[in-house]
Amino acid sequence: MATDEELPVCADNLPGGERSAGLVRPQCFTFAEPPGEMLLECGERLGPITLAYETYGRLNEARDNAVLILHALSGDAHVAGYHSSEDRKPGWWDTYVGPGKPFDTTKYFVICSNIISGCKGSTGPSSANPATGRPYGLSFPVVTIGDMVRAQVRLMDHLGIARLLSMAGGSMGGFQVLEWIVRYPERVASAIAIGTTARLSAQSIAFNEVGRQAIMADPNWMGGDYYGKAAPTAGLAIARMIGHITYLSDEQMHAKFGRRLQDAERLAYGFKTEFQVESYLKYQGDSFVRRFDANSYLYITKAMDYFDLVAGSGSLVEALALVRAEMLVVSISSDWLFPTYQSKEIVRALKANGVPTTFMEIKSGYGHDAFLLPNESLAGTIAGFLANVHRRVRRAGEGARP
Amino acid sequence: MATDEELPVCADNLPGGERSAGLVRPQCFTFAEPPGEMLLECGERLGPITLAYETYGRLNEARDNAVLILHALSGDAHVAGYHSSEDRKPGWWDTYVGPGKPFDTTKYFVICSNIISGCKGSTGPSSANPATGRPYGLSFPVVTIGDMVRAQVRLMDHLGIARLLSMAGGSMGGFQVLEWIVRYPERVASAIAIGTTARLSAQSIAFNEVGRQAIMADPNWMGGDYYGKAAPTAGLAIARMIGHITYLSDEQMHAKFGRRLQDAERLAYGFKTEFQVESYLKYQGDSFVRRFDANSYLYITKAMDYFDLVAGSGSLVEALALVRAEMLVVSISSDWLFPTYQSKEIVRALKANGVPTTFMEIKSGYGHDAFLLPNESLAGTIAGFLANVHRRVRRAGEGARP
Repeated sequence: MATDEELPVCADNLPGGERSAGLVRPQCFTFAEPPGEMLLECGERLGPITLAYETYGRLNEARDNAVLILHALSGDAHVAGYHSSEDRKPGWWDTYVGPGKPFDTTKYFVICSNIISGCKGSTGPSSANPATGRPYGLSFPVVTIGDMVRAQVRLMDHLGIARLLSMAGGSMGGFQVLEWIVRYPERVASAIAIGTTARLSAQSIAFNEVGRQAIMADPNWMGGDYYGKAAPTAGLAIARMIGHITYLSDEQMHAKFGRRLQDAERLAYGFKTEFQVESYLKYQGDSFVRRFDANSYLYITKAMDYFDLVAGSGSLVEALALVRAEMLVVSISSDWLFPTYQSKEIVRALKANGVPTTFMEIKSGYGHDAFLLPNESLAGTIAGFLANVHRRVRRAGEGARP
Repeated sequence: MATDEELPVCADNLPGGERSAGLVRPQCFTFAEPPGEMLLECGERLGPITLAYETYGRLNEARDNAVLILHALSGDAHVAGYHSSEDRKPGWWDTYVGPGKPFDTTKYFVICSNIISGCKGSTGPSSANPATGRPYGLSFPVVTIGDMVRAQVRLMDHLGIARLLSMAGGSMGGFQVLEWIVRYPERVASAIAIGTTARLSAQSIAFNEVGRQAIMADPNWMGGDYYGKAAPTAGLAIARMIGHITYLSDEQMHAKFGRRLQDAERLAYGFKTEFQVESYLKYQGDSFVRRFDANSYLYITKAMDYFDLVAGSGSLVEALALVRAEMLVVSISSDWLFPTYQSKEIVRALKANGVPTTFMEIKSGYGHDAFLLPNESLAGTIAGFLANVHRRVRRAGEGARP
């Protein structure tokens, strides 16, 4: 059991203090060893598959306190705490995950799972293809959100978790949440979907495609076969810059940067970085290429484009007909990538199916990425939602005992 | 006089029929010959300068019926009619310019002026630098909207137009309109600013910068020195694709493309163009590179980024203090590039200065580019606005006669 392998929490020595999840160890789970490869939606088989994950807190004896957290496009399994006392930054959702925080690691066994096709410890295009010993590159099969979730189901089996108390994810993490509740209704007691959509819009596909075109136009990309050589960093940086604009709001960009110049009093009348907003974007692009693989960017954005809960069903109402999880759906008022109307479509379809659903719109000017920032209203709602669900699950569990 | 050189209108032979502006001849005006080069805002001098333009209708004896139309980023001087009877498409605003149309060429002498730094017949980075005999490339000075307008003022002098009855422009054409009414208040009786802003937002600068980065990352760009060699078409296509997303609305993209596939029944699980929206964007990018110069894209977007009527003034109200033109300000409900709130800022500041101002928001789902499409409400408002202004100008002119 992963829980027995937890490192001791030494909160005193960590920047996060006593509310930090403390030191946490990256973990891996490998499955689908040949000849038992996983059949993917595209029809190809993939294996062995390694999934990176982290866990926080302890699984209780009833095994009814597990909460799975799923990340967005550029995220990873390191959701909270620190890998070492030298780390300058904690995990990506440390504000919400830790002792006394909304995902309270003194109460819940929190798991954060990475995704296949990524580049953060799980099997993806940069992994060695066992058939050749060389990185897959573009011979890696195109995976879907459904494939990512199927791999996570195997991880839950491995951890001995038959049914999750809850799960949560924002953005593409929300896609995974929706896929989970539709495909594995019996394994999810409740779920939290934040700043997400039931199917990617044409506009979002368009932004993703331009990012992919920028990567594939980079001469270093070489059909995806660039490992061990210079990476297509220029193309990937442009893709990230495009993405980053969509994660912020017009309002926030105005407040944060306006038309201020970076290092000058006057206009330079040239083409070097000049406005603060340009400098910020360039920094986002340049730092991203040091921590992300360009091919993974292609694969993950493609999985996002393919995400469509309605396809194959007549409607979103029919698509959500089997959902049994109690739901919390959260949108952000200034999110124009996955606007509130898209969350409301999900809420309406859930309610049409009689699914107990709470909806909240966070009033925030910070755009799509607002769910990553501290927000008292979001924190309180998540904490209350989880406590209520846990109470009901326990009561149901006790009632069911002989 | 340009008006005497007009080609006969042979409407019967043209696709546009009797409401077409008919055959029109591209014209050029060259000025600022050395040593009389024009001093630009950047402090450099430029000359000789050629400005491409077209005219429609006839300047009347009182010279009080001239209307100047200004185009957006990728536009040109060919606003209406045809260059030859073989042309498949008329000018870019043919819907609004022609006999009996809002800019009625039987009543008004319509001029459309190109911009310096462009690539549509006017002096720009692809023009030969007289000092070297080779294309300017990046040695071309960075011009501003103010510089573009100063060149247009010289064209009006050349055409013998002391005062314009009106002027109109959408998007960056609107920047030029605003610059005109602020810098040359005595030369403009009225003006129409459509889907525009008084200063470019951080978000718009961000989109422009990513487009420029895509061009400059293209190895064919070679510091702008690519003339006579392979052009940086991949980078320019990406820049255009980014721009094009911002010209449409989420709503329109959903209606026009949704998640439909281009040529297939099923997902391809690969990275070729697959969704209709991808195919559309690719077409936009690919066709753009055949008609536009990458360096001009850099220069024009930079001029847009620099556009800020407030800079140098304490406020927009102060910036517009000298305006004497009667104004029509038009926004588009689904325009998220230059949203309605930005038009309203202009309207408020004009009204604070006592400028007679009409504001209308076009209810349209077509986004920023809606002003290029037929719209009865916009057409009727422009026609009425021009007729009223013309009546007042004539009355004032008659009253002023001895």
